[in-house]
Amino acid sequence: MAKINENYSKLPGSYLFAEIARRVAAFSAENPDVKLIKLGIGDVTWPLAPAVIEAMHKAVDEMGRKETFRGYGPEQGYDFLRNAIVAHDFKARGAEITADEIFVSDGAKSDCGNIGDIFSADNVVAVCDPVYPVYVDTNAMAGRAGEYLSELEKWSNIYYMPTTSENSFVPELPKTHVDLIYLCFPNNPTGTTLTKDQLRQWVDYANEHDAVILFDAAYEAFITEDDVPHTIYEIPGAETCAIEFHSFSKTAGFTGNRCAYTVVPKALIRQGQSLNGMWNRRHTTKFNGVPYVVQRGAEAVYSEEGMQQVRQTIAFYQENARVIREGLKEAGLEVYGGVNSPYIWFKTPTDSWSFFDRLLKEAHVVTTPGAGFGPSGEGYIRVTAFGDAEDTKEAVRRILDLLK
Amino acid sequence: MAKINENYSKLPGSYLFAEIARRVAAFSAENPDVKLIKLGIGDVTWPLAPAVIEAMHKAVDEMGRKETFRGYGPEQGYDFLRNAIVAHDFKARGAEITADEIFVSDGAKSDCGNIGDIFSADNVVAVCDPVYPVYVDTNAMAGRAGEYLSELEKWSNIYYMPTTSENSFVPELPKTHVDLIYLCFPNNPTGTTLTKDQLRQWVDYANEHDAVILFDAAYEAFITEDDVPHTIYEIPGAETCAIEFHSFSKTAGFTGNRCAYTVVPKALIRQGQSLNGMWNRRHTTKFNGVPYVVQRGAEAVYSEEGMQQVRQTIAFYQENARVIREGLKEAGLEVYGGVNSPYIWFKTPTDSWSFFDRLLKEAHVVTTPGAGFGPSGEGYIRVTAFGDAEDTKEAVRRILDLLK
Repeated sequence: MAKINENYSKLPGSYLFAEIARRVAAFSAENPDVKLIKLGIGDVTWPLAPAVIEAMHKAVDEMGRKETFRGYGPEQGYDFLRNAIVAHDFKARGAEITADEIFVSDGAKSDCGNIGDIFSADNVVAVCDPVYPVYVDTNAMAGRAGEYLSELEKWSNIYYMPTTSENSFVPELPKTHVDLIYLCFPNNPTGTTLTKDQLRQWVDYANEHDAVILFDAAYEAFITEDDVPHTIYEIPGAETCAIEFHSFSKTAGFTGNRCAYTVVPKALIRQGQSLNGMWNRRHTTKFNGVPYVVQRGAEAVYSEEGMQQVRQTIAFYQENARVIREGLKEAGLEVYGGVNSPYIWFKTPTDSWSFFDRLLKEAHVVTTPGAGFGPSGEGYIRVTAFGDAEDTKEAVRRILDLLK
Repeated sequence: MAKINENYSKLPGSYLFAEIARRVAAFSAENPDVKLIKLGIGDVTWPLAPAVIEAMHKAVDEMGRKETFRGYGPEQGYDFLRNAIVAHDFKARGAEITADEIFVSDGAKSDCGNIGDIFSADNVVAVCDPVYPVYVDTNAMAGRAGEYLSELEKWSNIYYMPTTSENSFVPELPKTHVDLIYLCFPNNPTGTTLTKDQLRQWVDYANEHDAVILFDAAYEAFITEDDVPHTIYEIPGAETCAIEFHSFSKTAGFTGNRCAYTVVPKALIRQGQSLNGMWNRRHTTKFNGVPYVVQRGAEAVYSEEGMQQVRQTIAFYQENARVIREGLKEAGLEVYGGVNSPYIWFKTPTDSWSFFDRLLKEAHVVTTPGAGFGPSGEGYIRVTAFGDAEDTKEAVRRILDLLK
């Protein structure tokens, strides 16, 4: 008899955003005339940059002519894209990453989930709490999380690092041994960051303990402060202890265009094996590359016009973040994030799902309840800056009115 | 210390096509003026159909305007595509598959590899021999293959089903118990097929033993004979025992455009769990959908013009297949496949890597040695019909000259 992976049965409820979608759909069904403003899921709303559109049209034309048609490309991505990534995202920041350490993929979500394939099931995983649910759920699926303790809303084998206002959103180094450490800075969901000095402590810890840091840099394009690293490879020693995930989703509005990349340095060795070699084997065996048209679009993000256009869009979202941050503060809320991040995180007067429901039903604003990101997210809500400018202002006005 | 997945260390050598690429590159470096004809890797050469190109341009334009921009889509694929798939690939063939049983993805290679996630590590896997290496390698990575026995070129825990001229390329039902059965028909690499009656025996076997068939239908668009099933769901009872993989790669030349889909029927239950629900959880947790532009391209494959254009391209490849099949027979070789498949499989006068080298170095034709697909592939070579018409004829002439 075919036997299932029983770890799936241990997963609690459904994925956070599915539950939000369910509640929103139920409310809308009962209140079809209410215009909801959605500042919940971290999805962009601005169109792709003109330089990207132009590059994609050109690539579509190439795919329509025999002389320029492209079939299977290299699984790891075309050199034109890997080289552009290296030049702009690493060399320009003094990080010594080479093209053969870059693996282009269809999304950071896929890579964050699939990276577990190259590690054994008995590693101890550490995550910040609150946390992007994908890190936890994918480790649970792989049998690395142990049992789900529903009264604690925690997994027995996961090491949770509270990241709250009480420690200024800087997680403490683990007190017991951990092997794989997921870090996401600028952070999802809290919108907070680590300075270079703070991140250095993690790199030193990982090198000392032969741990591996899985660093999610999906939001680095929103960094405005000088002392915040755009890539962990700005920190000396990271190349022997860290894998890094990047995405074009938030940098260039690619959420519906699907392109990302993962960096696995060749200097990263565990038990005598090159993790770069292992990930290359995984990538070439279980993946067949990103569409040519999409890779040309991603390449255009690094062109002069592309970079300028993408920066304009990010500046627009950053202005939204400022409006939300200042508006919520004006409403008397305790507000974090939004300076180096598209996410604003605030303390709720009641528990977070109740306040989510109140914002939904009374202010008609969709947010994300902090509790959905882990037990230490209880008492917070996440708001995103990806909306329309007028909608964002209106949402802030509605919340202000509600809390008057 | 971070511990690696030690199953990766057991994997022998590199992936078949990487080894071929290495030999070809070495030959070309020494013989820069020789024009090689490549009938090796199964990659298409004709451009995307005009209807697909038009749909993609339109979708790129939509992505460039705020009013029509699309961010995250449903992870399982847009309804417009899932509905088109159901109507044309299933309903039209009398197979009762519904849209929520269709999971659109970036490739059948990814899905064939990732499907193992929902099964436990202790299932016994059966594969045809010769076989598409991805089925075996991904199970080895997951710890389901046991140890690699290099003298046999087999894994200790995999059940190999020889599929050779001796059994007319119809694998025998397993003699000992197996749980997961990979079947690919029309077959890669042999180009042979099963009739409906022959496939029915497998469906009956799987239902009787609570096994699950993982049916790879990537080449169904090449079927010319009436009695050959385009989908396993033409066989009664398949919905309770089979998962099926489809791809737009060979159907519509999408190898560089990346779109495929997997069918997991809701009636497929094991140990009380719905495999549809499990795969949905996997798909929504570790994947974020296929690019909108690509999904619009795939939808256009099902338009009236799209279907006509795609059929023309397939007819072109089928003519190549005929040329190769008849040419190789004329050369006195024992030839199989090529009737319902883009692959032609022939017996070699010497061992298959030696004959591969001879074809490369003397006829300047790149093929794929059968031994690379498993021990029972020894003594065969695979040739593909995806080349240019003139090149294909020239390749056949060169092989005829060589064997005169």
